[in-house]
Amino acid sequence: MYDFSFQSPVKSMAGRGKFRSIGEFTGSKKILLISDKIISSMAFYGEIKELLKGRIAGEFAGVMPNPECEMVDEAVTLCKSCGADCVIGIGGGSVLDTAKAVAVLSCEEGKTADYMAGKALGRHRQELILVPTTAGTGSEVTNVSVLTDPKINKKLSLVDPILYGDIAIIDPCLTETMPKRVAAASGFDALCHAIEAYWNIRTSPLCEALSMEAVDKIVKNIYPACNGDGDAQEEMVIASYIAGISFNQTRTTVCHAISYKLTSDYGIDHGLACAFTLIPFLRYESEDPAVKAALDRMGRYCGFSGSEALIDEIDRLYDAVGLPRHLSDRGVKPEDVDAIVDAGMAVPITKLCKREVTREAMHRIITDLL
Amino acid sequence: MYDFSFQSPVKSMAGRGKFRSIGEFTGSKKILLISDKIISSMAFYGEIKELLKGRIAGEFAGVMPNPECEMVDEAVTLCKSCGADCVIGIGGGSVLDTAKAVAVLSCEEGKTADYMAGKALGRHRQELILVPTTAGTGSEVTNVSVLTDPKINKKLSLVDPILYGDIAIIDPCLTETMPKRVAAASGFDALCHAIEAYWNIRTSPLCEALSMEAVDKIVKNIYPACNGDGDAQEEMVIASYIAGISFNQTRTTVCHAISYKLTSDYGIDHGLACAFTLIPFLRYESEDPAVKAALDRMGRYCGFSGSEALIDEIDRLYDAVGLPRHLSDRGVKPEDVDAIVDAGMAVPITKLCKREVTREAMHRIITDLL
Repeated sequence: MYDFSFQSPVKSMAGRGKFRSIGEFTGSKKILLISDKIISSMAFYGEIKELLKGRIAGEFAGVMPNPECEMVDEAVTLCKSCGADCVIGIGGGSVLDTAKAVAVLSCEEGKTADYMAGKALGRHRQELILVPTTAGTGSEVTNVSVLTDPKINKKLSLVDPILYGDIAIIDPCLTETMPKRVAAASGFDALCHAIEAYWNIRTSPLCEALSMEAVDKIVKNIYPACNGDGDAQEEMVIASYIAGISFNQTRTTVCHAISYKLTSDYGIDHGLACAFTLIPFLRYESEDPAVKAALDRMGRYCGFSGSEALIDEIDRLYDAVGLPRHLSDRGVKPEDVDAIVDAGMAVPITKLCKREVTREAMHRIITDLL
Repeated sequence: MYDFSFQSPVKSMAGRGKFRSIGEFTGSKKILLISDKIISSMAFYGEIKELLKGRIAGEFAGVMPNPECEMVDEAVTLCKSCGADCVIGIGGGSVLDTAKAVAVLSCEEGKTADYMAGKALGRHRQELILVPTTAGTGSEVTNVSVLTDPKINKKLSLVDPILYGDIAIIDPCLTETMPKRVAAASGFDALCHAIEAYWNIRTSPLCEALSMEAVDKIVKNIYPACNGDGDAQEEMVIASYIAGISFNQTRTTVCHAISYKLTSDYGIDHGLACAFTLIPFLRYESEDPAVKAALDRMGRYCGFSGSEALIDEIDRLYDAVGLPRHLSDRGVKPEDVDAIVDAGMAVPITKLCKREVTREAMHRIITDLL
């Protein structure tokens, strides 16, 4: 008995060199470019500026990781003052999430913090083009913008169909410059997206098919991609995009739920903060016979005998790409575990796992990771 | 090296009994219901009318198979005169394609034939809700409306993003009433969609994943679905919907290209007209090593050893669901073959097959089917 919904309205163009078509999608609009310090110094960013010459009304290159309300307000103010009616975000998840919020909030009067506190987003936004430069977040195809309110030190998600972009440009040329550390963590972020959409109570045959395809690509390509193989990097950005479409239908689950506090309180990068708990939760979820059967199918799709061999391979890859194993190395102390579990259990998406995540299980898993 | 685009903007809700939520999606709109003689006599149609009581501005229950321009004009006139701002299509592909055209053309001044002759569609349409009652066409998620111009006796496709619906309701309760003959032919239509998107030069990892999932479901369920098994019917409507998303990205290919003349000149139902040539073209395409490798992967996905076993199973199912093998039984004569080949080669989508379809190959395949 099926019960699901599916929609993926962002028109996505994928291919090597696609970013050079960016001028075709913007017409005669006045453009605000949003990026960060590193991206805005890249050669491809200069090339994009050249392609859009005469149409750029403003540039905001000040996005920081885990974008905060006030920074978004600053970009919104610039968008209004420069009269831009098209926002182009070029960067990782933080840049894309900022660009999505700016495209909507620049048509509104309120402050970003108001909307994070529950005020409804309006029904209008500027034209919105999203160009990922990492292979992980999937933000280019989701209706979510994850922002941080420093007053309450909390990551919160704005979720609304108005946050879907018009166009996503998935170009492996733009992810080649990722440092290995970023490629590893963002690749595991994408793996979390695919798997959390798969063991999700909201999954569907479409999400299952897309997640299996994404996991197959990630498992085969994350290691060579982290070591500079261009073909593998291309597979990774496609896989991240596919995983984005999948989890956009379902939302993520427990690994993401736990990650928020690890990022807010311990400064752990988003991708790594999610990756830390993926493997123990894969083993936990697969103790449920129905989840095991589904993961067995995913394992066979990826060329393994079943779920155990797949999980073992993910475990091996975790070390191979150099991700750290111990939360204690990141400043998490045994006395912190209760608070992390409290926070993780309180995030509603934890309840989307097919096998119910108990407080005891989460406590044990986090303790084992110290 | 990837080069593809992907988009699926229709918000789709799938599940048994979902049609009973139809009132929630229409707000206070004035509704035009579009269906055909058979559908409008069904119990579920009466139930939908009851659910929308007081909001129905008009009913057009006169859609005929292979909808003709003048019939669409008639429905457009009704839509305008009754002041409807929401079109709901409930039926098979002909009904849905009519509803899509009416939703757009009721915001325009021209006649349907003008747009089929190349006039550009406008940028506005009425709200559009699509409710399939067969498991085959995938029309509920595509941006295509296939209409017939009787003056030139030709099927032509309007293709435009404005033809995407707002909402699709995929409800297996509504496909239970399909006669076995319709279930068999429309099931093979869906199979053609999935496979023609798969051996397509425009395919992508997303289309491959979705097509494999659709084919797996169809191969496992078409026979029991044709024999009244409710669970199998549910799988078939989901599979048809998934195949629709897949071929919406790529367009169909040679089987559909040949079908148009078989329908126009010999009155063969659309699904059967496509199905006739599927198996010989599967064998033809799989002679190309790259296509064979892809079909081997699809075969394994469906639990077979490879492409040959999969094609053999499709061949077996073709007989099992009672589809006819010989074009000559439908009035096609040996002297007609050249004209059918001419027509098939002239349809541009024939060129979308990964293995080039030669005139000689098409001639041999159609001759063998006499």
